[in-house]
Amino acid sequence: MIERHVPPLMNVIHSQIESASCPESIKEAMLYSLNAGGKRIRPLLLIMAAQSYKPVTNSAYKLGAALEMIHTYSLIHDDLPSMDNDDYRRGKPTNHRVYGEALAILAGDALLTESFQLVSDISEDDMHPRDIVHITRRMSESAGIRGMVGGQVADIEGEDRALRLEELEWIHRHKTGALLEFAVEAGGILGGAPEGDIAALKIYAENLGLAFQIKDDILDVEGDAEIIGKPVGSDTDNQKSTYPSLLTLSEAKNKLDAHIQTAADALRTVSCDSSALLSILQYVAKRDR
Amino acid sequence: MIERHVPPLMNVIHSQIESASCPESIKEAMLYSLNAGGKRIRPLLLIMAAQSYKPVTNSAYKLGAALEMIHTYSLIHDDLPSMDNDDYRRGKPTNHRVYGEALAILAGDALLTESFQLVSDISEDDMHPRDIVHITRRMSESAGIRGMVGGQVADIEGEDRALRLEELEWIHRHKTGALLEFAVEAGGILGGAPEGDIAALKIYAENLGLAFQIKDDILDVEGDAEIIGKPVGSDTDNQKSTYPSLLTLSEAKNKLDAHIQTAADALRTVSCDSSALLSILQYVAKRDR
Repeated sequence: MIERHVPPLMNVIHSQIESASCPESIKEAMLYSLNAGGKRIRPLLLIMAAQSYKPVTNSAYKLGAALEMIHTYSLIHDDLPSMDNDDYRRGKPTNHRVYGEALAILAGDALLTESFQLVSDISEDDMHPRDIVHITRRMSESAGIRGMVGGQVADIEGEDRALRLEELEWIHRHKTGALLEFAVEAGGILGGAPEGDIAALKIYAENLGLAFQIKDDILDVEGDAEIIGKPVGSDTDNQKSTYPSLLTLSEAKNKLDAHIQTAADALRTVSCDSSALLSILQYVAKRDR
Repeated sequence: MIERHVPPLMNVIHSQIESASCPESIKEAMLYSLNAGGKRIRPLLLIMAAQSYKPVTNSAYKLGAALEMIHTYSLIHDDLPSMDNDDYRRGKPTNHRVYGEALAILAGDALLTESFQLVSDISEDDMHPRDIVHITRRMSESAGIRGMVGGQVADIEGEDRALRLEELEWIHRHKTGALLEFAVEAGGILGGAPEGDIAALKIYAENLGLAFQIKDDILDVEGDAEIIGKPVGSDTDNQKSTYPSLLTLSEAKNKLDAHIQTAADALRTVSCDSSALLSILQYVAKRDR
Protein backbone atom coordinates (compact mmCIF):
# COMPACT_ATOMS: atom_id res chain seq x y z
CA MET A 1 0.00 0.00 0.00
CA ILE A 2 1.66 3.14 -1.26
CA GLU A 3 -0.77 5.38 0.64
CA ARG A 4 0.52 4.35 4.06
CA HIS A 5 3.41 6.76 3.46
CA VAL A 6 1.10 9.78 3.23
CA PRO A 7 0.45 10.27 6.99
CA PRO A 8 4.17 10.33 7.98
CA LEU A 9 4.85 12.59 4.99
CA MET A 10 2.14 15.02 6.10
CA ASN A 11 3.52 14.90 9.67
CA VAL A 12 6.91 16.07 8.40
CA ILE A 13 5.23 18.82 6.35
CA HIS A 14 3.17 20.03 9.30
CA SER A 15 5.96 20.00 11.86
CA GLN A 16 8.32 21.77 9.46
CA ILE A 17 5.91 24.68 8.97
CA GLU A 18 4.36 24.78 12.43
CA SER A 19 7.78 24.95 14.13
CA ALA A 20 8.53 28.33 12.53
CA SER A 21 8.27 31.49 14.61
CA CYS A 22 6.41 33.82 12.21
CA PRO A 23 2.94 35.24 11.52
CA GLU A 24 0.28 32.50 11.69
CA SER A 25 -1.37 33.71 8.47
CA ILE A 26 1.48 32.59 6.21
CA LYS A 27 1.67 29.15 7.86
CA GLU A 28 -2.08 28.80 7.39
CA ALA A 29 -1.88 29.78 3.70
CA MET A 30 0.99 27.31 3.10
CA LEU A 31 -0.78 24.45 4.87
CA TYR A 32 -4.12 25.19 3.16
CA SER A 33 -2.72 24.25 -0.24
CA LEU A 34 -0.54 21.42 1.09
CA ASN A 35 -3.61 19.91 2.77
CA ALA A 36 -5.85 20.38 -0.27
CA GLY A 37 -5.28 16.79 -1.33
CA GLY A 38 -3.76 15.79 -4.60
CA LYS A 39 -2.07 12.58 -5.57
CA ARG A 40 1.28 13.13 -3.76
CA ILE A 41 2.79 11.50 -6.84
CA ARG A 42 6.24 13.11 -6.43
CA PRO A 43 6.93 12.15 -2.81
CA LEU A 44 5.44 8.70 -3.33
CA LEU A 45 7.65 8.12 -6.38
CA LEU A 46 10.68 9.17 -4.38
CA ILE A 47 9.75 6.93 -1.47
CA MET A 48 9.04 3.98 -3.75
CA ALA A 49 12.38 4.38 -5.49
CA ALA A 50 14.28 4.69 -2.20
CA GLN A 51 12.38 1.78 -0.67
CA SER A 52 13.26 -0.47 -3.58
CA TYR A 53 16.81 -0.45 -2.19
CA LYS A 54 16.59 0.25 1.55
CA PRO A 55 13.97 0.54 4.31
CA VAL A 56 12.38 4.01 4.37
CA THR A 57 13.88 6.53 6.79
CA ASN A 58 12.71 9.94 7.99
CA SER A 59 15.04 11.51 5.40
CA ALA A 60 12.86 10.06 2.63
CA TYR A 61 9.85 11.85 4.12
CA LYS A 62 11.86 15.09 4.38
CA LEU A 63 12.91 14.91 0.76
CA GLY A 64 9.36 13.90 -0.18
CA ALA A 65 7.99 16.88 1.75
CA ALA A 66 10.42 19.13 -0.15
CA LEU A 67 9.09 17.82 -3.47
CA GLU A 68 5.47 18.26 -2.40
CA MET A 69 6.22 21.84 -1.32
CA ILE A 70 7.81 22.69 -4.68
CA HIS A 71 4.87 21.16 -6.53
CA THR A 72 2.39 23.03 -4.30
CA TYR A 73 4.20 26.38 -4.68
CA SER A 74 4.02 25.96 -8.46
CA LEU A 75 0.26 25.30 -8.30
CA ILE A 76 -0.37 28.36 -6.09
CA HIS A 77 1.57 30.64 -8.44
CA ASP A 78 0.08 29.03 -11.60
CA ASP A 79 -3.44 29.67 -10.31
CA LEU A 80 -2.87 33.43 -9.77
CA PRO A 81 -5.02 35.92 -11.71
CA SER A 82 -2.04 37.01 -13.84
CA MET A 83 -1.30 33.38 -14.77
CA ASP A 84 -4.13 30.81 -15.24
CA ASN A 85 -6.61 32.83 -13.13
CA ASP A 86 -8.16 29.71 -11.61
CA ASP A 87 -10.75 30.01 -8.84
CA TYR A 88 -10.83 26.34 -7.96
CA ARG A 89 -8.22 23.60 -7.60
CA ARG A 90 -9.11 20.07 -6.55
CA GLY A 91 -12.67 21.28 -5.93
CA LYS A 92 -11.58 23.91 -3.39
CA PRO A 93 -11.09 27.67 -3.77
CA THR A 94 -7.53 28.45 -4.89
CA ASN A 95 -5.06 29.95 -2.42
CA HIS A 96 -5.40 33.55 -3.58
CA ARG A 97 -9.21 33.28 -3.48
CA VAL A 98 -8.97 32.48 0.23
CA TYR A 99 -5.92 34.49 1.37
CA GLY A 100 -5.61 37.21 -1.28
CA GLU A 101 -2.94 37.54 -3.95
CA ALA A 102 -0.18 38.98 -1.78
CA LEU A 103 -0.24 36.17 0.78
CA ALA A 104 -0.64 33.56 -1.98
CA ILE A 105 2.50 34.81 -3.73
CA LEU A 106 4.40 34.83 -0.43
CA ALA A 107 3.09 31.37 0.52
CA GLY A 108 4.49 30.07 -2.78
CA ASP A 109 7.82 31.82 -2.19
CA ALA A 110 7.95 30.40 1.33
CA LEU A 111 7.17 26.83 0.22
CA LEU A 112 9.96 26.95 -2.36
CA THR A 113 12.41 28.27 0.23
CA GLU A 114 11.32 25.74 2.86
CA SER A 115 11.90 22.88 0.41
CA PHE A 116 15.62 23.65 0.38
CA GLN A 117 15.70 23.82 4.14
CA LEU A 118 14.20 20.31 4.30
CA VAL A 119 16.93 19.00 2.00
CA SER A 120 19.62 20.63 4.13
CA ASP A 121 18.15 18.81 7.15
CA ILE A 122 18.61 15.33 5.69
CA SER A 123 20.54 13.25 8.20
CA GLU A 124 24.17 12.42 7.49
CA ASP A 125 23.32 8.90 8.66
CA ASP A 126 21.18 8.56 5.53
CA MET A 127 23.21 10.56 3.03
CA HIS A 128 26.77 11.82 2.69
CA PRO A 129 26.90 15.66 2.74
CA ARG A 130 28.37 15.54 -0.79
CA ASP A 131 25.20 13.74 -1.94
CA ILE A 132 23.01 16.27 -0.10
CA VAL A 133 24.78 19.03 -2.06
CA HIS A 134 24.24 17.03 -5.27
CA ILE A 135 20.52 16.66 -4.41
CA THR A 136 20.30 20.42 -3.80
CA ARG A 137 21.84 21.10 -7.22
CA ARG A 138 19.57 18.65 -9.03
CA MET A 139 16.49 19.91 -7.19
CA SER A 140 17.17 23.52 -8.15
CA GLU A 141 17.88 22.50 -11.75
CA SER A 142 14.60 20.59 -11.91
CA ALA A 143 12.56 23.37 -10.33
CA GLY A 144 14.10 26.45 -11.98
CA ILE A 145 14.57 27.84 -15.48
CA ARG A 146 16.34 24.61 -16.55
CA GLY A 147 13.21 22.69 -15.54
CA MET A 148 9.78 23.52 -14.18
CA VAL A 149 9.88 27.33 -14.40
CA GLY A 150 11.37 27.18 -17.91
CA GLY A 151 8.52 24.87 -18.94
CA GLN A 152 5.92 27.12 -17.37
CA VAL A 153 7.27 30.13 -19.29
CA ALA A 154 7.23 28.18 -22.57
CA ASP A 155 3.70 27.02 -21.75
CA ILE A 156 2.46 30.59 -21.20
CA GLU A 157 4.18 31.80 -24.36
CA GLY A 158 2.65 28.97 -26.38
CA GLU A 159 -0.87 29.50 -25.06
CA ASP A 160 -2.26 31.61 -27.87
CA ARG A 161 -0.94 29.64 -30.80
CA ALA A 162 -1.01 26.09 -32.11
CA LEU A 163 2.05 24.18 -30.88
CA ARG A 164 3.98 21.58 -32.77
CA LEU A 165 4.22 18.17 -31.09
CA GLU A 166 7.92 18.73 -30.27
CA GLU A 167 7.09 22.04 -28.57
CA LEU A 168 4.31 20.43 -26.55
CA GLU A 169 6.69 17.69 -25.47
CA TRP A 170 9.44 20.19 -24.56
CA ILE A 171 6.94 21.97 -22.32
CA HIS A 172 5.87 18.78 -20.58
CA ARG A 173 9.42 17.48 -20.18
CA HIS A 174 10.25 20.70 -18.36
CA LYS A 175 7.04 21.88 -16.69
CA THR A 176 6.16 18.54 -15.09
CA GLY A 177 8.74 16.00 -16.28
CA ALA A 178 11.84 17.51 -14.71
CA LEU A 179 10.55 17.36 -11.14
CA LEU A 180 9.13 13.83 -11.58
CA GLU A 181 12.47 12.68 -12.95
CA PHE A 182 14.27 14.30 -10.04
CA ALA A 183 11.90 12.59 -7.59
CA VAL A 184 12.84 9.12 -8.84
CA GLU A 185 16.53 9.98 -9.19
CA ALA A 186 16.64 11.38 -5.64
CA GLY A 187 14.93 8.26 -4.34
CA GLY A 188 17.55 6.12 -6.04
CA ILE A 189 20.37 8.20 -4.55
CA LEU A 190 18.77 8.05 -1.09
CA GLY A 191 18.46 4.29 -1.46
CA GLY A 192 22.09 3.97 -2.52
CA ALA A 193 21.25 2.62 -5.99
CA PRO A 194 24.19 1.81 -8.31
CA GLU A 195 24.94 4.28 -11.17
CA GLY A 196 23.44 2.03 -13.86
CA ASP A 197 20.20 1.75 -11.90
CA ILE A 198 19.99 5.55 -11.54
CA ALA A 199 20.23 5.90 -15.32
CA ALA A 200 17.46 3.32 -15.82
CA LEU A 201 15.33 4.96 -13.12
CA LYS A 202 15.63 8.26 -14.98
CA ILE A 203 14.41 6.66 -18.24
CA TYR A 204 11.53 5.17 -16.25
CA ALA A 205 10.69 8.57 -14.73
CA GLU A 206 11.02 10.46 -18.01
CA ASN A 207 8.54 8.16 -19.73
CA LEU A 208 6.29 8.01 -16.69
CA GLY A 209 6.17 11.83 -16.73
CA LEU A 210 5.18 12.01 -20.39
CA ALA A 211 2.62 9.22 -19.88
CA PHE A 212 1.21 11.14 -16.92
CA GLN A 213 0.76 14.25 -19.04
CA ILE A 214 -0.76 12.45 -22.03
CA LYS A 215 -3.17 10.77 -19.60
CA ASP A 216 -4.11 14.21 -18.23
CA ASP A 217 -4.95 15.39 -21.74
CA ILE A 218 -6.96 12.24 -22.41
CA LEU A 219 -8.88 12.64 -19.13
CA ASP A 220 -9.77 16.19 -20.15
CA VAL A 221 -11.48 14.70 -23.22
CA GLU A 222 -13.15 11.61 -21.77
CA GLY A 223 -12.85 11.83 -17.97
CA ASP A 224 -15.64 12.24 -15.41
CA ALA A 225 -15.84 15.87 -14.21
CA GLU A 226 -16.95 14.82 -10.71
CA ILE A 227 -14.09 12.38 -10.27
CA ILE A 228 -11.45 14.73 -11.74
CA GLY A 229 -12.74 17.66 -9.67
CA LYS A 230 -12.65 20.09 -12.63
CA PRO A 231 -14.71 20.58 -15.79
CA VAL A 232 -14.11 18.22 -18.72
CA GLY A 233 -13.35 19.67 -22.15
CA SER A 234 -11.68 22.82 -20.80
CA ASP A 235 -8.59 22.24 -22.96
CA THR A 236 -10.75 22.23 -26.10
CA ASP A 237 -12.70 25.29 -24.90
CA ASN A 238 -9.40 27.11 -24.31
CA GLN A 239 -8.04 25.94 -27.69
CA LYS A 240 -5.09 24.45 -25.86
CA SER A 241 -2.64 22.27 -27.79
CA THR A 242 -2.88 18.76 -26.35
CA TYR A 243 -1.83 15.27 -27.40
CA PRO A 244 -5.40 14.36 -28.49
CA SER A 245 -5.73 17.64 -30.45
CA LEU A 246 -2.36 17.21 -32.18
CA LEU A 247 -2.50 13.43 -32.66
CA THR A 248 -6.18 12.33 -32.42
CA LEU A 249 -7.44 10.63 -29.26
CA SER A 250 -6.62 7.17 -30.51
CA GLU A 251 -3.01 8.08 -31.45
CA ALA A 252 -2.59 9.80 -28.06
CA LYS A 253 -3.60 6.55 -26.39
CA ASN A 254 -1.04 4.65 -28.49
CA LYS A 255 1.64 7.14 -27.44
CA LEU A 256 0.61 6.74 -23.81
CA ASP A 257 0.99 2.95 -24.14
CA ALA A 258 4.40 3.33 -25.79
CA HIS A 259 5.76 5.47 -22.95
CA ILE A 260 4.34 3.07 -20.35
CA GLN A 261 6.08 0.24 -22.21
CA THR A 262 9.45 2.04 -22.38
CA ALA A 263 9.25 2.85 -18.68
CA ALA A 264 8.41 -0.75 -17.81
CA ASP A 265 11.31 -2.00 -19.97
CA ALA A 266 13.74 0.30 -18.14
CA LEU A 267 12.49 -1.03 -14.80
CA ARG A 268 13.29 -4.58 -15.89
CA THR A 269 17.01 -3.72 -16.00
CA VAL A 270 17.41 -2.50 -12.39
CA SER A 271 19.03 -4.58 -9.65
CA CYS A 272 16.29 -4.02 -7.06
CA ASP A 273 12.72 -5.24 -6.62
CA SER A 274 10.93 -2.72 -8.81
CA SER A 275 7.38 -3.95 -8.25
CA ALA A 276 6.34 -0.82 -6.31
CA LEU A 277 7.59 1.46 -9.10
CA LEU A 278 5.80 -0.73 -11.62
CA SER A 279 2.56 -0.35 -9.68
CA ILE A 280 2.83 3.47 -9.92
CA LEU A 281 3.26 3.09 -13.66
CA GLN A 282 0.11 0.98 -13.84
CA TYR A 283 -1.71 3.52 -11.67
CA VAL A 284 -0.77 6.36 -14.06
CA ALA A 285 -1.92 4.34 -17.07
CA LYS A 286 -5.29 3.50 -15.51
CA ARG A 287 -6.10 6.46 -13.26
CA ASP A 288 -9.46 8.15 -13.77
CA ARG A 289 -8.43 11.44 -12.08
CA MET B 1 37.96 49.71 -3.09
CA ILE B 2 34.93 47.56 -2.36
CA GLU B 3 33.43 48.22 -5.78
CA ARG B 4 36.15 46.31 -7.65
CA HIS B 5 34.27 43.15 -6.64
CA VAL B 6 31.13 44.16 -8.54
CA PRO B 7 32.30 43.26 -12.10
CA PRO B 8 33.36 39.67 -11.23
CA LEU B 9 30.14 39.29 -9.22
CA MET B 10 28.05 40.40 -12.20
CA ASN B 11 30.03 38.03 -14.45
CA VAL B 12 29.03 35.09 -12.26
CA ILE B 13 25.40 36.27 -12.27
CA HIS B 14 25.34 36.64 -16.06
CA SER B 15 27.02 33.36 -16.87
CA GLN B 16 24.80 31.49 -14.42
CA ILE B 17 21.62 32.73 -16.10
CA GLU B 18 22.84 32.86 -19.68
CA SER B 19 24.07 29.25 -19.58
CA ALA B 20 20.52 27.95 -19.07
CA SER B 21 18.68 26.35 -21.96
CA CYS B 22 15.23 27.94 -21.63
CA PRO B 23 13.05 30.70 -23.14
CA GLU B 24 15.03 33.94 -23.55
CA SER B 25 12.20 36.04 -22.07
CA ILE B 26 12.67 34.71 -18.54
CA LYS B 27 16.46 35.22 -18.65
CA GLU B 28 15.87 38.76 -19.86
CA ALA B 29 13.37 39.48 -17.06
CA MET B 30 15.75 38.07 -14.42
CA LEU B 31 18.74 40.03 -15.72
CA TYR B 32 16.73 43.25 -16.09
CA SER B 33 16.24 43.51 -12.33
CA LEU B 34 19.70 42.16 -11.47
CA ASN B 35 21.25 44.80 -13.74
CA ALA B 36 19.04 47.62 -12.42
CA GLY B 37 21.79 48.77 -10.09
CA GLY B 38 21.45 48.91 -6.35
CA LYS B 39 24.10 48.90 -3.70
CA ARG B 40 25.02 45.17 -3.84
CA ILE B 41 25.31 45.46 -0.07
CA ARG B 42 24.71 41.75 0.64
CA PRO B 43 27.33 40.27 -1.71
CA LEU B 44 29.84 42.98 -0.80
CA LEU B 45 29.34 42.28 2.91
CA LEU B 46 29.87 38.60 2.29
CA ILE B 47 32.99 39.21 0.24
CA MET B 48 34.41 41.66 2.78
CA ALA B 49 33.85 39.18 5.62
CA ALA B 50 35.42 36.31 3.67
CA GLN B 51 38.31 38.48 2.53
CA SER B 52 39.12 39.48 6.08
CA TYR B 53 40.36 35.91 6.55
CA LYS B 54 41.42 34.58 3.13
CA PRO B 55 41.97 35.83 -0.42
CA VAL B 56 38.68 36.00 -2.36
CA THR B 57 37.84 32.96 -4.52
CA ASN B 58 35.22 32.36 -7.19
CA SER B 59 33.07 30.67 -4.53
CA ALA B 60 32.70 34.01 -2.77
CA TYR B 61 31.27 35.49 -5.97
CA LYS B 62 28.94 32.50 -6.37
CA LEU B 63 27.62 32.88 -2.86
CA GLY B 64 27.43 36.65 -3.35
CA ALA B 65 25.48 36.14 -6.57
CA ALA B 66 23.08 33.85 -4.67
CA LEU B 67 22.46 36.61 -2.11
CA GLU B 68 21.91 39.23 -4.78
CA MET B 69 19.44 36.93 -6.54
CA ILE B 70 17.44 36.39 -3.34
CA HIS B 71 17.39 40.13 -2.65
CA THR B 72 16.36 40.87 -6.24
CA TYR B 73 13.59 38.24 -6.25
CA SER B 74 12.19 39.81 -3.07
CA LEU B 75 12.16 43.27 -4.69
CA ILE B 76 10.40 41.98 -7.84
CA HIS B 77 7.67 40.29 -5.79
CA ASP B 78 7.37 43.22 -3.32
CA ASP B 79 6.79 45.61 -6.22
CA LEU B 80 3.86 43.60 -7.67
CA PRO B 81 0.40 45.25 -7.90
CA SER B 82 -0.98 42.99 -5.15
CA MET B 83 1.89 43.97 -2.84
CA ASP B 84 3.40 47.47 -2.87
CA ASN B 85 2.17 48.20 -6.41
CA ASP B 86 5.31 50.16 -7.31
CA ASP B 87 5.85 51.36 -10.87
CA TYR B 88 9.45 52.45 -10.39
CA ARG B 89 12.45 51.02 -8.59
CA ARG B 90 15.89 52.68 -8.65
CA GLY B 91 14.47 55.15 -11.20
CA LYS B 92 13.53 52.40 -13.68
CA PRO B 93 10.16 50.77 -14.41
CA THR B 94 9.61 47.78 -12.13
CA ASN B 95 9.86 44.26 -13.52
CA HIS B 96 6.11 43.67 -13.95
CA ARG B 97 5.73 47.06 -15.68
CA VAL B 98 8.18 45.86 -18.35
CA TYR B 99 7.48 42.12 -18.58
CA GLY B 100 3.97 41.77 -17.17
CA GLU B 101 2.92 40.24 -13.87
CA ALA B 102 3.14 36.58 -14.89
CA LEU B 103 6.75 36.78 -16.07
CA ALA B 104 7.71 38.99 -13.09
CA ILE B 105 6.37 36.40 -10.65
CA LEU B 106 8.21 33.62 -12.51
CA ALA B 107 11.43 35.67 -12.70
CA GLY B 108 11.29 36.03 -8.92
CA ASP B 109 10.63 32.31 -8.47
CA ALA B 110 13.50 31.50 -10.84
CA LEU B 111 15.96 33.82 -9.07
CA LEU B 112 15.16 32.24 -5.71
CA THR B 113 15.64 28.75 -7.17
CA GLU B 114 18.86 29.72 -8.97
CA SER B 115 20.34 31.04 -5.73
CA PHE B 116 20.30 27.54 -4.25
CA GLN B 117 21.90 26.15 -7.37
CA LEU B 118 24.75 28.63 -7.00
CA VAL B 119 25.33 27.50 -3.41
CA SER B 120 25.36 23.86 -4.50
CA ASP B 121 28.07 24.76 -7.04
CA ILE B 122 30.51 26.09 -4.44
CA SER B 123 33.82 24.31 -4.94
CA GLU B 124 34.85 21.68 -2.40
CA ASP B 125 38.31 23.27 -2.56
CA ASP B 126 36.79 26.31 -0.85
CA MET B 127 34.27 24.68 1.46
CA HIS B 128 33.64 21.25 2.93
CA PRO B 129 30.35 19.75 1.66
CA ARG B 130 29.11 19.71 5.27
CA ASP B 131 29.57 23.49 5.38
CA ILE B 132 27.83 23.88 2.01
CA VAL B 133 24.84 22.02 3.50
CA HIS B 134 25.01 24.31 6.56
CA ILE B 135 25.07 27.38 4.29
CA THR B 136 22.03 26.02 2.40
CA ARG B 137 20.15 25.60 5.69
CA ARG B 138 21.05 29.06 6.98
CA MET B 139 20.25 30.69 3.63
CA SER B 140 16.78 29.11 3.51
CA GLU B 141 16.15 30.08 7.14
CA SER B 142 17.17 33.68 6.41
CA ALA B 143 15.11 33.93 3.24
CA GLY B 144 11.93 32.06 4.26
CA ILE B 145 9.20 32.33 6.89
CA ARG B 146 11.84 32.30 9.66
CA GLY B 147 13.43 35.36 8.07
CA MET B 148 12.72 37.61 5.10
CA VAL B 149 9.31 36.24 4.02
CA GLY B 150 8.11 36.19 7.65
CA GLY B 151 9.15 39.84 7.98
CA GLN B 152 7.44 40.77 4.73
CA VAL B 153 4.17 39.18 5.90
CA ALA B 154 4.36 41.02 9.25
CA ASP B 155 5.14 44.23 7.35
CA ILE B 156 2.05 43.86 5.12
CA GLU B 157 -0.15 43.00 8.11
CA GLY B 158 1.13 46.01 10.03
CA GLU B 159 0.65 48.46 7.17
CA ASP B 160 -2.70 49.88 8.12
CA ARG B 161 -2.10 50.42 11.81
CA ALA B 162 0.40 52.20 14.05
CA LEU B 163 3.16 49.78 15.07
CA ARG B 164 4.92 49.67 18.41
CA LEU B 165 8.71 50.09 18.28
CA GLU B 166 9.23 46.38 19.10
CA GLU B 167 6.97 45.37 16.23
CA LEU B 168 8.81 47.66 13.82
CA GLU B 169 12.12 46.21 14.96
CA TRP B 170 10.84 42.60 14.60
CA ILE B 171 9.86 43.38 11.03
CA HIS B 172 13.25 44.87 10.19
CA ARG B 173 15.18 42.09 11.91
CA HIS B 174 13.34 39.60 9.70
CA LYS B 175 12.51 41.41 6.47
CA THR B 176 16.00 42.83 5.88
CA GLY B 177 18.15 41.88 8.89
CA ALA B 178 18.08 38.10 8.51
CA LEU B 179 19.62 38.09 5.03
CA LEU B 180 22.25 40.72 5.93
CA GLU B 181 23.22 38.68 8.98
CA PHE B 182 23.44 35.56 6.85
CA ALA B 183 25.64 37.40 4.34
CA VAL B 184 28.25 38.23 6.97
CA GLU B 185 28.01 34.82 8.65
CA ALA B 186 28.42 33.03 5.31
CA GLY B 187 31.44 35.20 4.52
CA GLY B 188 32.99 34.24 7.84
CA ILE B 189 32.36 30.55 7.20
CA LEU B 190 33.78 30.82 3.68
CA GLY B 191 36.86 32.55 5.11
CA GLY B 192 37.28 29.85 7.75
CA ALA B 193 36.72 32.24 10.67
CA PRO B 194 36.89 30.75 14.20
CA GLU B 195 33.56 30.19 16.06
CA GLY B 196 34.01 33.20 18.33
CA ASP B 197 34.60 35.47 15.36
CA ILE B 198 31.41 34.19 13.66
CA ALA B 199 29.42 35.12 16.78
CA ALA B 200 30.96 38.62 16.79
CA LEU B 201 30.38 38.99 13.05
CA LYS B 202 26.70 38.17 13.60
CA ILE B 203 26.41 40.91 16.26
CA TYR B 204 28.10 43.29 13.83
CA ALA B 205 25.68 42.30 11.03
CA GLU B 206 22.59 42.44 13.26
CA ASN B 207 23.38 46.02 14.30
CA LEU B 208 24.50 46.99 10.83
CA GLY B 209 21.14 45.76 9.52
CA LEU B 210 19.13 47.79 12.01
CA ALA B 211 21.34 50.83 11.37
CA PHE B 212 20.78 50.39 7.63
CA GLN B 213 17.02 50.41 8.12
CA ILE B 214 16.96 53.38 10.50
CA LYS B 215 19.10 55.26 7.97
CA ASP B 216 16.55 54.38 5.24
CA ASP B 217 13.78 55.89 7.36
CA ILE B 218 15.88 58.99 8.04
CA LEU B 219 16.68 59.41 4.32
CA ASP B 220 12.98 59.28 3.55
CA VAL B 221 12.58 62.33 5.79
CA GLU B 222 15.64 64.36 4.89
CA GLY B 223 17.23 62.73 1.83
CA ASP B 224 17.57 64.15 -1.69
CA ALA B 225 14.92 62.63 -4.01
CA GLU B 226 17.23 62.80 -7.02
CA ILE B 227 20.06 61.01 -5.26
CA ILE B 228 17.80 58.37 -3.66
CA GLY B 229 15.95 57.76 -6.93
CA LYS B 230 12.50 57.84 -5.29
CA PRO B 231 10.28 60.55 -3.78
CA VAL B 232 11.11 61.82 -0.30
CA GLY B 233 8.39 61.81 2.39
CA SER B 234 6.56 58.78 0.94
CA ASP B 235 6.61 57.03 4.35
CA THR B 236 4.82 60.00 5.95
CA ASP B 237 2.37 60.20 3.04
CA ASN B 238 1.61 56.49 3.45
CA GLN B 239 1.30 56.88 7.26
CA LYS B 240 3.97 54.21 7.59
CA SER B 241 5.42 53.50 11.03
CA THR B 242 9.10 54.47 10.94
CA TYR B 243 11.86 55.14 13.45
CA PRO B 244 11.51 58.94 13.04
CA SER B 245 7.71 58.73 13.38
CA LEU B 246 7.88 56.55 16.51
CA LEU B 247 10.93 58.17 18.11
CA THR B 248 11.39 61.67 16.58
CA LEU B 249 14.07 62.30 13.98
CA SER B 250 16.68 63.23 16.56
CA GLU B 251 16.09 60.08 18.66
CA ALA B 252 16.19 57.96 15.50
CA LYS B 253 19.62 59.43 14.76
CA ASN B 254 20.77 58.56 18.29
CA LYS B 255 19.54 55.01 17.83
CA LEU B 256 21.38 54.81 14.51
CA ASP B 257 24.59 55.93 16.23
CA ALA B 258 24.12 53.39 19.02
CA HIS B 259 23.77 50.49 16.57
CA ILE B 260 26.80 51.69 14.61
CA GLN B 261 28.74 51.79 17.88
CA THR B 262 27.68 48.29 18.97
CA ALA B 263 28.62 46.91 15.56
CA ALA B 264 32.02 48.63 15.68
CA ASP B 265 32.63 47.27 19.18
CA ALA B 266 31.88 43.72 18.02
CA LEU B 267 34.35 44.14 15.15
CA ARG B 268 37.08 45.07 17.61
CA THR B 269 36.95 41.55 19.11
CA VAL B 270 37.61 39.57 15.92
CA SER B 271 40.94 37.96 15.11
CA CYS B 272 41.15 39.26 11.52
CA ASP B 273 41.80 42.65 9.95
CA SER B 274 38.28 44.07 10.09
CA SER B 275 38.99 47.41 8.42
CA ALA B 276 36.96 46.54 5.31
CA LEU B 277 33.92 45.60 7.40
CA LEU B 278 34.37 48.79 9.39
CA SER B 279 34.35 50.82 6.18
CA ILE B 280 30.96 49.31 5.21
CA LEU B 281 29.66 50.35 8.61
CA GLN B 282 30.85 53.89 8.03
CA TYR B 283 29.32 53.84 4.58
CA VAL B 284 25.90 52.83 5.99
CA ALA B 285 26.08 55.57 8.61
CA LYS B 286 26.96 58.27 6.08
CA ARG B 287 25.26 57.13 2.87
CA ASP B 288 22.96 59.62 1.16
CA ARG B 289 21.03 57.05 -0.87
